[in-house]
Amino acid sequence: MPAVGVDLGGTKLAIGIVDEAGRILKKHLEPTNPEEGSQAILTRISKGIEQVWQGDIKGIGIGCPGTVDASRGEVIFAPNLGWRGVAVGPFIQGEFSLPVVVDNDANAAAVGELKVGGGQGCRNMIYLTVSTGIGAGIIIDGEIYRGFTFRAGEVGHMVLAPDGPLCSCGNRGCLEAFASGTSIAKRAMEAMDKGLPTSMTGRVDARMVAAAARGGDLLAKDILAWAFRYLSMGIGNLLNIFDPELIIIGGGLSAMGDQLLIPVREGIVQYAWLREKARERVVLSKLGQDIGLIGAASLVL
Amino acid sequence: MPAVGVDLGGTKLAIGIVDEAGRILKKHLEPTNPEEGSQAILTRISKGIEQVWQGDIKGIGIGCPGTVDASRGEVIFAPNLGWRGVAVGPFIQGEFSLPVVVDNDANAAAVGELKVGGGQGCRNMIYLTVSTGIGAGIIIDGEIYRGFTFRAGEVGHMVLAPDGPLCSCGNRGCLEAFASGTSIAKRAMEAMDKGLPTSMTGRVDARMVAAAARGGDLLAKDILAWAFRYLSMGIGNLLNIFDPELIIIGGGLSAMGDQLLIPVREGIVQYAWLREKARERVVLSKLGQDIGLIGAASLVL
Repeated sequence: MPAVGVDLGGTKLAIGIVDEAGRILKKHLEPTNPEEGSQAILTRISKGIEQVWQGDIKGIGIGCPGTVDASRGEVIFAPNLGWRGVAVGPFIQGEFSLPVVVDNDANAAAVGELKVGGGQGCRNMIYLTVSTGIGAGIIIDGEIYRGFTFRAGEVGHMVLAPDGPLCSCGNRGCLEAFASGTSIAKRAMEAMDKGLPTSMTGRVDARMVAAAARGGDLLAKDILAWAFRYLSMGIGNLLNIFDPELIIIGGGLSAMGDQLLIPVREGIVQYAWLREKARERVVLSKLGQDIGLIGAASLVL
Repeated sequence: MPAVGVDLGGTKLAIGIVDEAGRILKKHLEPTNPEEGSQAILTRISKGIEQVWQGDIKGIGIGCPGTVDASRGEVIFAPNLGWRGVAVGPFIQGEFSLPVVVDNDANAAAVGELKVGGGQGCRNMIYLTVSTGIGAGIIIDGEIYRGFTFRAGEVGHMVLAPDGPLCSCGNRGCLEAFASGTSIAKRAMEAMDKGLPTSMTGRVDARMVAAAARGGDLLAKDILAWAFRYLSMGIGNLLNIFDPELIIIGGGLSAMGDQLLIPVREGIVQYAWLREKARERVVLSKLGQDIGLIGAASLVL
């Protein structure tokens, strides 16, 4: 029986019907604006679910950014949305008489990979999202590992160099400050402001840096090599700490494909305890940009 | 009913009877020499067990250095001992008709803390040994987390600064290369070789650096401050990744007490996501230098 997946983000809301194989049968997308407040967004989620509804539905899975108390279906804190203590689960449960599971979006994605993606059959795996920020969903013994206060998986704030670039969290040298899409774009802009020679112009994002690098731009190549060196270091650390079967890289930057995977795997051979054997344990997500929706639905599939 | 604990190290073998409260009822110590080979050491373990044996015994728990396949009771690889593929469990099981559990020494210590030490009542906790090397035993949902190939917990090789000091593993800037007892001693010796002013003389170890720092030696103070900064960074990373209830610091350096704990907690407030709230989650082991023995026995208690 299919399930409803709800992928709530700071700028968009995706709602869809997903079947047991992880295929999206129907999908609805709308922008969100954190300023409209939690009650308005919850009402929009509820209306969106009604809009996609069809046939028998097993339950509703909801992936939210930030810290989520999955046992109570409550968003404890989501800075992207400006939410504190929003009881998403109880509200949606009140609207529909179906099982509702709410979890952090990276956790939901990890469950999606485990149930219908590249992590099928794994007992222990990590889903690493490399996007505007960096975070992880950790699967231990086939279950999401959430930690003592639902904050496990903050791998983006693993410090990799205490004198590295400033991070949004106030520390220096966090993985996220080196290798997130935001950081890659920032580094490119800084270099351009300094007048370094490059084919890039205007306001760039990580995708544009990647395109420039593929076109032979040396500055763009250097920036990516630097970011991927630290990304492989962070992943190497996770391999040494968890010894997982797989680390699946998803998020916006995973769309770069081999342009990201090849240098990251090279770095892993250097940084991971298992060297060559660790290389094949790091793969790219195949669920693409719908992972948020598929992951959310997987919470109840 | 008490259990036998066997703590096998590269230089010593401790065997004891430990009761359900973690008290050592009887203890036997002898030196080991890796050069005598695995068969000779296994025979010595067996004879040592006979020597301490008294009354009814529940089982035999054995903590070994290196990578241990706990499901088969086999040491996969222990560089300290020069062992590869040594079937410790089956051998000891053949000698005594009792349950035998073999595990990595840091895992055994973590179980000791969980069952009879500071981690009682925890679902998720980490035991961090800071000694000649640095390693961890990870408890998830009340069980040892061993990873896919029994190599989880290699936190000593978490890279914290890619241009940091050379580590025995070949990389630079591993946690162990900054904050292990070996590294602290090495740093002191290097500074002394350069002729920096200090009260320390001769061949120093971490304990002597700590004593010199307590006596007001500025070089010793600087060296410890530097090591503890990286130790707190590594622990901060673990707090961000695992969000555990507790991280218990044991191993030789934990004997420094507040001299280690106070600066480490200060660093944690900087590096951990939860800031002030994270401070109390990091404590020192109270099981002292017998943790290896107590932990090993705890594997069957």
